[in-house]
Amino acid sequence: MIQFDNLSQEAPYLVFKDKYNQSLKANQKAIEAICISSYSSKKKEVNGRYVNLKFVNGRKFIFFSNYKSPKSQEFTQHNQITASLYWSKTDTQIRMKAYIEQTSSEFNKNYFAKRDKKKNALAISSHQSSPITSYEALQKNYELSLLETNLTECPEYWGGYSFTPYYFEFWEGHESRLNKRETYELNKGKWIHGFLQA
Amino acid sequence: MIQFDNLSQEAPYLVFKDKYNQSLKANQKAIEAICISSYSSKKKEVNGRYVNLKFVNGRKFIFFSNYKSPKSQEFTQHNQITASLYWSKTDTQIRMKAYIEQTSSEFNKNYFAKRDKKKNALAISSHQSSPITSYEALQKNYELSLLETNLTECPEYWGGYSFTPYYFEFWEGHESRLNKRETYELNKGKWIHGFLQA
Repeated sequence: MIQFDNLSQEAPYLVFKDKYNQSLKANQKAIEAICISSYSSKKKEVNGRYVNLKFVNGRKFIFFSNYKSPKSQEFTQHNQITASLYWSKTDTQIRMKAYIEQTSSEFNKNYFAKRDKKKNALAISSHQSSPITSYEALQKNYELSLLETNLTECPEYWGGYSFTPYYFEFWEGHESRLNKRETYELNKGKWIHGFLQA
Repeated sequence: MIQFDNLSQEAPYLVFKDKYNQSLKANQKAIEAICISSYSSKKKEVNGRYVNLKFVNGRKFIFFSNYKSPKSQEFTQHNQITASLYWSKTDTQIRMKAYIEQTSSEFNKNYFAKRDKKKNALAISSHQSSPITSYEALQKNYELSLLETNLTECPEYWGGYSFTPYYFEFWEGHESRLNKRETYELNKGKWIHGFLQA
């Protein structure tokens, strides 16, 4: 589930919410899973991975991460991303090109304090995406963290990312393959609406 | 569905096939949908979109596209991509960093001749991802193409892309969030196996 707060009333945000509601009603599993494409300008390498979209706050889409993970380093090197999701139950694809930044430390602290303690133990104990000798070693670190740590205090290396789109594409699959593709592109503060060939 | 031909017997390919079989058995919808992250070095912009993975042929993963589409231009500018898929039925994520190239014109012609004629009419009539005035205009072009064109002759602007991974990550979700992450990285022709922190 994605939580919508003070959602922007601009056209592409309303379309996003409408398509989300349809997919939720159709019992879409993992509706919050979204693929974030990023770029490391140091390695000259494109990367991608799924994250869980937690909030849409005004115009900002928010997920959480370890701030020392490879994706965080990539966002620092190149602050433009594309976020792509596909909901199979409604054959809907949404693509958003956006700029990304960290959420405030106050926002992170508030959210962390309310989260499940077991999740927090993992956020504290895990150096996300660093190599480790085995899965068992990961489990051991986690179990130690559960016992020893203040599980409501947000570590400085953990928090949110918010991305603000400047381009949306809404793609609707059709059996004929004559897929419907609508776009919204921000131009001098205005959303320009268009259609793309399938 | 993905068709496997002469699949490489190297470790990450066998893991891929095994996880595919599990997800197929669990009735994963849109099992062939995969997000391709790419980079335009001209625009300095990361992009992403879903494609349908059609074949795994030896070590090559293959999908099809219009060769004049934005993604094709991006692959020409930067031939490294990341392909990410998520199968919700088994809570499995697979990420592959790879180099991408066009399939041969012979391969494209053979495949095109066997495809559904209606799909071919669309491949011929549509300037994929170019703007168009309306969805109705797209339909009209398609209907004209159905009537007038030789629907088994592959146009030069349509064909396959094959990507060959140099890095695989297999991610398995766990309720505790203590997700299992295994990697295979190609080093001087050998796959190095490792684990990552959740």
